[in-house]
Amino acid sequence: MADRVTASLQRLVRQPSVSARGEGIEECAQLVSDMLKESGIHSRLVRLKGAAPMVIGRVDSKSNPHKTLLLYNHYDVQPPEPLDQWRYPPFSGVKKNNKIFGRGSSDDKGELVARIEAVRRCIEKDNVPCNIVFAIEGEEEIGSPNVERYLSKYRRELACDGVVWEFGYVDTRDRPVISLGMKGLLFVELRVREAARDAHSGMAVIVRNPAWRLVEVLSTLRSPDGRVLVPDWYREVRPLTTTQKLVAAREPLDLAAFKKEYGIKKLVGDMGVRAAREAMVAGATCNIAGMWSGYSGEGAKTVLPARASVKLDFRLVPGMKPARQLARLRTHLRARGFGDVEVVPFHSVAPSRTDPSDPLVGCIKRAADAAFGGSTVSLSSTGTGPMDSFSRVLGAPCVSFGCTHVFARIHSPNEFARLDLVKKAATALQVAMGEFGRT
Amino acid sequence: MADRVTASLQRLVRQPSVSARGEGIEECAQLVSDMLKESGIHSRLVRLKGAAPMVIGRVDSKSNPHKTLLLYNHYDVQPPEPLDQWRYPPFSGVKKNNKIFGRGSSDDKGELVARIEAVRRCIEKDNVPCNIVFAIEGEEEIGSPNVERYLSKYRRELACDGVVWEFGYVDTRDRPVISLGMKGLLFVELRVREAARDAHSGMAVIVRNPAWRLVEVLSTLRSPDGRVLVPDWYREVRPLTTTQKLVAAREPLDLAAFKKEYGIKKLVGDMGVRAAREAMVAGATCNIAGMWSGYSGEGAKTVLPARASVKLDFRLVPGMKPARQLARLRTHLRARGFGDVEVVPFHSVAPSRTDPSDPLVGCIKRAADAAFGGSTVSLSSTGTGPMDSFSRVLGAPCVSFGCTHVFARIHSPNEFARLDLVKKAATALQVAMGEFGRT
Repeated sequence: MADRVTASLQRLVRQPSVSARGEGIEECAQLVSDMLKESGIHSRLVRLKGAAPMVIGRVDSKSNPHKTLLLYNHYDVQPPEPLDQWRYPPFSGVKKNNKIFGRGSSDDKGELVARIEAVRRCIEKDNVPCNIVFAIEGEEEIGSPNVERYLSKYRRELACDGVVWEFGYVDTRDRPVISLGMKGLLFVELRVREAARDAHSGMAVIVRNPAWRLVEVLSTLRSPDGRVLVPDWYREVRPLTTTQKLVAAREPLDLAAFKKEYGIKKLVGDMGVRAAREAMVAGATCNIAGMWSGYSGEGAKTVLPARASVKLDFRLVPGMKPARQLARLRTHLRARGFGDVEVVPFHSVAPSRTDPSDPLVGCIKRAADAAFGGSTVSLSSTGTGPMDSFSRVLGAPCVSFGCTHVFARIHSPNEFARLDLVKKAATALQVAMGEFGRT
Repeated sequence: MADRVTASLQRLVRQPSVSARGEGIEECAQLVSDMLKESGIHSRLVRLKGAAPMVIGRVDSKSNPHKTLLLYNHYDVQPPEPLDQWRYPPFSGVKKNNKIFGRGSSDDKGELVARIEAVRRCIEKDNVPCNIVFAIEGEEEIGSPNVERYLSKYRRELACDGVVWEFGYVDTRDRPVISLGMKGLLFVELRVREAARDAHSGMAVIVRNPAWRLVEVLSTLRSPDGRVLVPDWYREVRPLTTTQKLVAAREPLDLAAFKKEYGIKKLVGDMGVRAAREAMVAGATCNIAGMWSGYSGEGAKTVLPARASVKLDFRLVPGMKPARQLARLRTHLRARGFGDVEVVPFHSVAPSRTDPSDPLVGCIKRAADAAFGGSTVSLSSTGTGPMDSFSRVLGAPCVSFGCTHVFARIHSPNEFARLDLVKKAATALQVAMGEFGRT
């Protein structure tokens, strides 16, 4: 059994599939479809114009044909650069002891292999406890621009009663974190222009400086303790319920280790560990992801720049709709006299959160506890993903569970998957499917 | 004659000499020295440890060996970036009609060529009306950090009765502005660091963002109308006298043309023309010359940067000492709770202003009126130079006069020199030397 998981993961990692530059996408989609078929799962590639193909897999249950679990995954990976920092070539799938190294080994190929293995075991035992549908996309690492279109077009084939999200973390104690939500995202660039061209900085006595104007604009957006100052920004956000607060209080955050890892002493607004845990799962932000104006080279240059820009990412929490928040930002800027500031929206994703009392959560939690000797439920990831599209289009609860170790270096050189965790996740999923079929 | 000026300027522009990164400095110093010699001027390079060489040129007068005029210039130039905004390569010296394009074509190579031409004409006519000394440094664009040491060490060779400053503007009516002062400068970089490394921006809920902190710091430094908010910043600045105010009111500022050239509608603090004229000659500033943090490439990157920096140039007016102002800035930052912000001083220059009634001013004014059909006297340039070092070490009055058109885009892409102005300045200087020899 061990060999099958290892071999499958190596085979999949060895097929590059870099969506950012379209490298190996077709080949990898075909390989995934082949691997599903070899495991006894019906599979086909579906296509939308201008999009990477989606692999849809399906196994019907004889015992419970009225209950369907959808497994969402992606076969594309992040670019492997910087190449010189890899110990082994990024698409070699080298095995060292308990680890497979390679780009995508954890994110998301290790997760996919665990799920194929779980389903295969059910098929081999002729005991598929519920219908299983795989939806495996090829553009997750470039922001899933077409996943909602795929879900809408194939909503009948993908109809389900629950979704297992494409990945899930395993914490430093080797216990899964079962996450019930994702933050939304509104990414915009603000551009200020004053003069038609850069000027000698001696002219600053009379010519306006867009960098100063940008500072003035930014000062109106966020307080030093992290609160967004745009009027009505939090209007539809409801405070956490008592149950949610209890779940948030158990959020697996080791603050001492965290501070050490990032080399920091204090958190935003000097918050303590309880506030930090709530912020992780339920905090909205306005983050400066980039800011630039004028000369940033070595030494001094006495220039008065003509332009200044900032990239802002706002993380959104349930209740916040990206389009409405964007409109509020624009209204705020106009109201404060910054109507000249150009607002360029890049992309947006709505937030999503599954109810902790949903039966699917319990099924996965119990199965994870059994396979890993414990687990934690988290209200939300700090990150963003198209979970809202799944819950909205398919009308099903989404739960994130998987086998990606928190230090598995996803998106970084020397990404690895731990084989013991992949196998435990397969076992847990097999158990969870059984429970889910019985609910 | 026309060809000689054009050829000399092209030759000089084609030799890069970017002091900010030490590019072509030695080569350009040698070229300048060669060009002086070819014009019949004795020349040599002098050196101080760790400094770009200074070119000292000399021609002695037979008719008046007791009067010496020093011509101060520089052979270094600003960095040419941003390169993509240049119509012609910055070191090509392309001639289009009456203009030579290129970095340094006006600042300061066009000025230097005009002066060499003026002296050469005197030599050719065997009529050098006073001793002429050239002092041509190679670090003006990085704040002349060694010019005072050069002046002190070579003060006998450089002893003089008057200094013609390295450049001078020509206004929109093609008339020179004879400037009697320079602003001082304090150039600093402020650096903020929060975490040891960049983080995923999902972490912005708890990890502090240095760009936000920089925005907070900057908000305390300057009001939107341009006033510096650092306590006691203006303490030693005395208001203009009635005479100075009269001179300031004649400051050659064509506001309509100025706004058109820069593509702007309003000035700092919505000031009118009278206030703008006073600001030009007597206003202090805090300018953001550069600001950067995080990701500034195409598209979106959800990063939480670890560092943020800003380059600030403060222009200083008589009464302000750079070291005292820097100390006030540091005190202010500490007092406002920004003790963690690193303050890196790059360089500083004291402000300077020559008495409008000095005889040298009259000589140059009359010569300029003759050659250009008119001229204006200005209390001060908006720019900065080490004029204070010259007047203090050499004990001579300094007057700024030259041929740089006010819209010649110095320090910006597509800098140019107007050949007609370069030639008129040569003529005016020849006349002024004659007058000066007779005073």
